[in-house]
Amino acid sequence: MNFRLIYKVVGNVLLVEAGGLILPLAASLYFHEETWHSFALVAALCAVLGFALARLPAGPKDMMQGRDGYMAVAVAWLGLSAFGAVPYVVSHAIPRYLDAFFETVSGFTTTGATILTDIESLPKGVLFWRAETQWMGGMGVLVMFLALMPKLGSGSVHLMRAESPGPIKSKLVPKVGQTAKILYAIYISLTAAEIVALRVAGLGWYESVTHAFTTLATGGFSVKGASIAAYNGSPAIVWIITVFTFLAGVNFSLIYAAFRGNWRQVWRSEELRLYIALILCAAGLICLDLTLHTGARPADSFTDAAFQVVTIITTTGYATRDFALWPTFSRCILVVLMFIGACAGSTAGGVKVSRVLIHLKSLRRDLARIIHPNHVSVLSMDGETLSERVVSSSHGFLVAYVVVLIAGVLVVSWDKVGFEEAVTASMTCIGNVGPGMGLLGPSGNFSALSGLSKFFLSLEMLMGRLELLPLLVLFNPDTWRNR
Amino acid sequence: MNFRLIYKVVGNVLLVEAGGLILPLAASLYFHEETWHSFALVAALCAVLGFALARLPAGPKDMMQGRDGYMAVAVAWLGLSAFGAVPYVVSHAIPRYLDAFFETVSGFTTTGATILTDIESLPKGVLFWRAETQWMGGMGVLVMFLALMPKLGSGSVHLMRAESPGPIKSKLVPKVGQTAKILYAIYISLTAAEIVALRVAGLGWYESVTHAFTTLATGGFSVKGASIAAYNGSPAIVWIITVFTFLAGVNFSLIYAAFRGNWRQVWRSEELRLYIALILCAAGLICLDLTLHTGARPADSFTDAAFQVVTIITTTGYATRDFALWPTFSRCILVVLMFIGACAGSTAGGVKVSRVLIHLKSLRRDLARIIHPNHVSVLSMDGETLSERVVSSSHGFLVAYVVVLIAGVLVVSWDKVGFEEAVTASMTCIGNVGPGMGLLGPSGNFSALSGLSKFFLSLEMLMGRLELLPLLVLFNPDTWRNR
Repeated sequence: MNFRLIYKVVGNVLLVEAGGLILPLAASLYFHEETWHSFALVAALCAVLGFALARLPAGPKDMMQGRDGYMAVAVAWLGLSAFGAVPYVVSHAIPRYLDAFFETVSGFTTTGATILTDIESLPKGVLFWRAETQWMGGMGVLVMFLALMPKLGSGSVHLMRAESPGPIKSKLVPKVGQTAKILYAIYISLTAAEIVALRVAGLGWYESVTHAFTTLATGGFSVKGASIAAYNGSPAIVWIITVFTFLAGVNFSLIYAAFRGNWRQVWRSEELRLYIALILCAAGLICLDLTLHTGARPADSFTDAAFQVVTIITTTGYATRDFALWPTFSRCILVVLMFIGACAGSTAGGVKVSRVLIHLKSLRRDLARIIHPNHVSVLSMDGETLSERVVSSSHGFLVAYVVVLIAGVLVVSWDKVGFEEAVTASMTCIGNVGPGMGLLGPSGNFSALSGLSKFFLSLEMLMGRLELLPLLVLFNPDTWRNR
Repeated sequence: MNFRLIYKVVGNVLLVEAGGLILPLAASLYFHEETWHSFALVAALCAVLGFALARLPAGPKDMMQGRDGYMAVAVAWLGLSAFGAVPYVVSHAIPRYLDAFFETVSGFTTTGATILTDIESLPKGVLFWRAETQWMGGMGVLVMFLALMPKLGSGSVHLMRAESPGPIKSKLVPKVGQTAKILYAIYISLTAAEIVALRVAGLGWYESVTHAFTTLATGGFSVKGASIAAYNGSPAIVWIITVFTFLAGVNFSLIYAAFRGNWRQVWRSEELRLYIALILCAAGLICLDLTLHTGARPADSFTDAAFQVVTIITTTGYATRDFALWPTFSRCILVVLMFIGACAGSTAGGVKVSRVLIHLKSLRRDLARIIHPNHVSVLSMDGETLSERVVSSSHGFLVAYVVVLIAGVLVVSWDKVGFEEAVTASMTCIGNVGPGMGLLGPSGNFSALSGLSKFFLSLEMLMGRLELLPLLVLFNPDTWRNR
């Protein structure tokens, strides 16, 4: 294990966090809130510690291997969350550290599950930090650090791999630092576009910025206690958020292709087509269910269904309605979407549409093998051959996902919650969605859960965001046995 | 497709069914019930039709291939259920054919889910047939036919494969007919042993025989409306059933090894050890939950937990308590056990412990590959190498299982049931367990579900019992396109 390089990475990530804390510090000062002290304190702490760690002699640059990349990412995210939670506690916004840790992990992992019971009573600077953690976590803190300081040598590709979601890791351009810069350029452009759109639609700057942050990150923390239901009177705002949420769930390499006018590549993407098909099917079915079984008008049902399907499949977790009160069929569809998630290479969580596609292709091949036992066939996606390694690692991912999911259900079920709460708490956290069902639904929160549940769900959020392997490597005894 | 051979197999299976109908006919006569007409009528029908189909010229014997085996098994099980449902309707025990079909499929697949609201009001002959369908389905109707008439040539191995559960299909002895005979000999011996044990413990012959039938088949249809709770006053009866249920969940090849004194092979089985470990862990945790959270005495909690864990993991589905009222933690553990099921090569359903083991081993290898990227390793079980084909088909099975499971949840959720009912209805049917949770729990039944749900759940039961592939092959358009 290349510990010195890991320290160095963690140090640099803390420096990025120190930089990130300047924004809520500025917001606090702007709104004349005393909480600026907290942000200044923690920013200074991160800066000093980060600087010290980053200046450690790093050893030979090229010695970073795959496992070191996973390890560095896991430790960096744990550190990021541990320090990011401090301002909540120091400012008395969230008195207990474990609650603050849960909220911060929920932020950086773009989950959006909250332990807050009265969001609007908090200082605006604190809510700004809460939204900004999601924006930072969305595209990845290490990706940001690679974009800013692409001098880590060949090891950087391992960091990028360990932090980026999806079964197939490809770089947009040969250089990792350049890829990271392009990703952030797209991310920042889309965020800016949404800020402007929301501002034009009538929101103030503060609400426009925070909502754009949490939309593009598919995070779902709103500065409004009622979430997007606060804007149900303005269809324009709801539809702007729907569209940008949808875009945030698309593979950013396709958005890059679209920017460059390469529409053929965009339409060739089987993942994108399945993503769109899933949204249309799910929205149609929910619209039907709501119209038939709740007596809602078809047009209203459609708006609600479309918003809720997009926000759940992209694992954002905003709400315009309390979908925990919808009929069972609609709720079940939303839970399935929580499991699936959106496209690889986006800011969304879940198992990702491309993995679902790989599983279905692989299943179809198994069936074909029975009919034609001697037929040799390779799987392909978007016209390119899928290596058996990718297929097999997708299977491994699914198994690990289900195992962690079940463990989470059992941990949460020990608290006095119902079956639906236990299942969806684990599902929504590992999928980085946000709200669950029942008492954990959009009008509820996670505050009543036990400390053990909050801690385990925090780990699940991290595992979901980092796609399991980094944390599993960290907690695997073999990793430590074979130094 | 070798249709003539498929007809022949179906014909022989109907002859086996005609033979099976003689027992409830005799029981009806013994108890002076008029229902003997129904059994006589259907037995005659099956005999005539079966004889006609079996006498069709079969074509070259060796032309049966894997897909023909799957096809024959799928069609045979559908036919078996279609005819087996008729006595219920003719005797007016179950007026609607779809309900009778559900009940019959639930019988042959050893599921034990029922649409009956008042079991004890039915004639004893009908309840005998209900229990006997489970016993016939437990070890397999085609396996019985192969044991009786092992003259199908090389094709018989495909039938055996398609009907026997588990990821690795091995014959006990080189000849298929001989293997089938040994399996039935073990099955009959264990059934006889349980009949005697229950009789000695104080039950009458009728209740001893029917409960032994449904225990060894891991079916769970009881002739008592209260299920095994009717015997809660007699710990001996409860523990006899617990022990035989446990044995019915063990791979019959290990029971054969034990009969032959080969204990080394028994203890070497990793699946058996994990099966026992799962039972002990689950029972311990549920015992803890019941003791702490319901105020029950530890000894009572242990008896209840042990019984319920064994009956659920073996997918039998008996109840001594209404576990649908247990705390969420205990319920969640039971639902996880419904998913896992017991050992391959037993009469139990679920995904099987050995597949869980293969998935966990494969996951551990994925993690090891990150630490030692160039390390080549093969998976092994019980000291023998697992072929990559077995690993990959276990993955395919898991994916297909989850896809069908989710489809079932969505179908059932369209009825006005809760989330827990929808999830566990699909889980219990594909896993061939029997009761679900909530209104579908041990004190409830499936009668209130819609026709569509009953039909889909019937298909799920068949898919679960035949381990998905036969029915998926039957419904795959490619099968029909490539004649």
